[in-house]
Amino acid sequence: MLQECQPADIAEFLVDLEPEEIATVLNLLDGDMAAEVLNQLDPDLANQVLKIIGAEKTSEILDEMYSDDVADLLGELTDQEKDQILNLMEKEDAVEVRELLEYKEDTAGGIMTTEYVAILQDITAARAIEVLRETAPDAETVYYVYVINAKNQLAGVISLRELIVASPDTVIEEIMHRKVKSVNVHMDQEEVAAMVSKYNFLAIPVVDDNNCLLGIVTVDDVIDVIHEEATEDIFRLAGTAEIDLEDTLGSRIINSLRTRLPWLLVTLAGGLLAGRIIRGLEAELQAVVALAYFIPLLTGMGGNVGTQSSTLTVRGLATGQIDAKELFLTVGRESLVGSAVGLICGLIVTFVAFFWQKSLLLGLVVGGALLGNMITAATMGTLVPLVFKRMGIDPAVASAPFISTSIDITGLLIYTGLASFFMSQLV
Amino acid sequence: MLQECQPADIAEFLVDLEPEEIATVLNLLDGDMAAEVLNQLDPDLANQVLKIIGAEKTSEILDEMYSDDVADLLGELTDQEKDQILNLMEKEDAVEVRELLEYKEDTAGGIMTTEYVAILQDITAARAIEVLRETAPDAETVYYVYVINAKNQLAGVISLRELIVASPDTVIEEIMHRKVKSVNVHMDQEEVAAMVSKYNFLAIPVVDDNNCLLGIVTVDDVIDVIHEEATEDIFRLAGTAEIDLEDTLGSRIINSLRTRLPWLLVTLAGGLLAGRIIRGLEAELQAVVALAYFIPLLTGMGGNVGTQSSTLTVRGLATGQIDAKELFLTVGRESLVGSAVGLICGLIVTFVAFFWQKSLLLGLVVGGALLGNMITAATMGTLVPLVFKRMGIDPAVASAPFISTSIDITGLLIYTGLASFFMSQLV
Repeated sequence: MLQECQPADIAEFLVDLEPEEIATVLNLLDGDMAAEVLNQLDPDLANQVLKIIGAEKTSEILDEMYSDDVADLLGELTDQEKDQILNLMEKEDAVEVRELLEYKEDTAGGIMTTEYVAILQDITAARAIEVLRETAPDAETVYYVYVINAKNQLAGVISLRELIVASPDTVIEEIMHRKVKSVNVHMDQEEVAAMVSKYNFLAIPVVDDNNCLLGIVTVDDVIDVIHEEATEDIFRLAGTAEIDLEDTLGSRIINSLRTRLPWLLVTLAGGLLAGRIIRGLEAELQAVVALAYFIPLLTGMGGNVGTQSSTLTVRGLATGQIDAKELFLTVGRESLVGSAVGLICGLIVTFVAFFWQKSLLLGLVVGGALLGNMITAATMGTLVPLVFKRMGIDPAVASAPFISTSIDITGLLIYTGLASFFMSQLV
Repeated sequence: MLQECQPADIAEFLVDLEPEEIATVLNLLDGDMAAEVLNQLDPDLANQVLKIIGAEKTSEILDEMYSDDVADLLGELTDQEKDQILNLMEKEDAVEVRELLEYKEDTAGGIMTTEYVAILQDITAARAIEVLRETAPDAETVYYVYVINAKNQLAGVISLRELIVASPDTVIEEIMHRKVKSVNVHMDQEEVAAMVSKYNFLAIPVVDDNNCLLGIVTVDDVIDVIHEEATEDIFRLAGTAEIDLEDTLGSRIINSLRTRLPWLLVTLAGGLLAGRIIRGLEAELQAVVALAYFIPLLTGMGGNVGTQSSTLTVRGLATGQIDAKELFLTVGRESLVGSAVGLICGLIVTFVAFFWQKSLLLGLVVGGALLGNMITAATMGTLVPLVFKRMGIDPAVASAPFISTSIDITGLLIYTGLASFFMSQLV
């Protein structure tokens, strides 16, 4: 009954069981199916299961897995553990996995598979189809057939359909497409994902610096990368990082402290600096306590406008909607928006402060400070990520904690400046 | 030369030209290539080009486009404009496009294509291959062959390779896989994308309530959906929305005001309420002005912890890492993290305030308020999105502006409460 289910569904069901129980279930499945199920499990759990399941079944399962998936599985183990498992595999496959383990995890090499279909450019269509029949069951995708020359360099590409339609005697070289898009093995996985999704490819070939074909990246791995990168961006914007569900409560708290505390300490230092700025207003505050009432309003509004602007900019840069070269245009546009919302909110606050505290001067100071604060917030929220991008720093690092703390400080400088200038007569 | 390039590259090059110039370039390309290039352009621009290019070429291009892409293109036009263009298409294709236009944009029906390959379950493998030869060039993907019964109901699926390997006389019914995953035509596009990426499919069949096959959703459309939904989540978290690059500066500012101002007005109201709370501390503030110095620190720290917690929760819910049912566990865990960072930051601030203002009591009040504020912030940041999710509201609406304003208010209540309790002796 299990044999007829989707591997992803079986894995979902197994994830709540003990490793021993999972091993029992995998023993019931044939190697092919067990491999697909194991591939859907978390690498840590999968490795525990492999330790229990015994050498023979492990070897059966690993031989059925794609080389890139085996490499992902072994990535977290110690060298000694890696060797133990690789020794159980067929020699040829083990060599491929060892090669894949050499590449950095977040590059084209780290996500590519070596199970692809390639044919030589000087054989006939009939011979090519024969080659495919022999090698295809091993290949992760057969939607594109890559063509190589005698030096293993990528020379072209041809679709399965074109191959079948061609007359049997035609030499591949004559019918292949020579303009084939490929990526370098060291290219960042985010760029690879962007190319595959731009061109709507199902797979893209990976080459080394000499244009020799090393492997392919398939669309299912690209989807994983897109998910991963979006999550990373979202968490960076909030100054935090992903939680690992496999961790115990203790190590989760320690991990949270490690990723979140640095940003909070930045905020803490900023908050103390903000306090120092307010102290400059000591005399005015003693005369007009109401000046303190509007501090949370000013910092809160500035923080939100700044977060909106920086989020629009960071995501716009990531999706390509915003070009880092158009710095002045983008900043100018956001400053205009900041001025517009600042004018509306500033007017509201001026009236509220006036009626509440019966002081037009106080109203004007608070409203003016809010306007200035919102313009600065929109400008900084846009400028900082753009400058970071130009300097080669990930713009998502210009995250909420960083931006909102800087904006708190500039906002309070505007407020205390205005207040001490206009209110000094009250002291 | 253009004919050998990738459509996406040509589109990228064309996007900076005038519609008249784009029309000239498309006239140089054959219908197939022109269709693919047009498909990569923004729908607004593509429609402008079609108006210029003339009826004959428009009809040639549209006949080469996939029905789902034509529907996307026409989606933004008025009914009269739609009819004008549909009249230029072959009748059969126009009917398909009209049907697709009926489905909501963000459902399976809105992103599916009607160009798929389906065979009847009672024909032989040999006949099936013949059918494929005839229909395949029209079909968007031929990686999966769907099998239907006489009532057009989805009965099974078979891969191209299995079909070729099977002996010619076998009836499809005997070799097809009966357990085939499908999605309902009204399913939300986000769920469709989640299924395709979970099962690593290249396409998934779309059926109506009677299990009749209506179309397929292909992996390239799924990638677009994943990008779209991630962007939407990111912008919602910051209380803003996507900007449309085609808009003029004026309408962009109006759009920005429309999406961003509501959240800012929420923050404004919250800020005024915060001011009202601080007014309760009027007597204490007059005696100890230093109490005002720590207001930005408290609101800033609370806002950041809250943003971190809510971001982790909202994204965790979106990726399925967090289960809305495990409410107490998740909230408890985040509260613990909040307590841990709160203890560390609270201690630091107690010492700083003590040494700065030479008052142990003030230090303890500020440090204690910070601890309480950070625990509340982590708890609310986690609880609010989870409760929203359970109530069927998009948890991303529990966005930065909303959360941080609520946290400002509770934080100030804790601070003024502690201060008026312990500091009353100073007044």
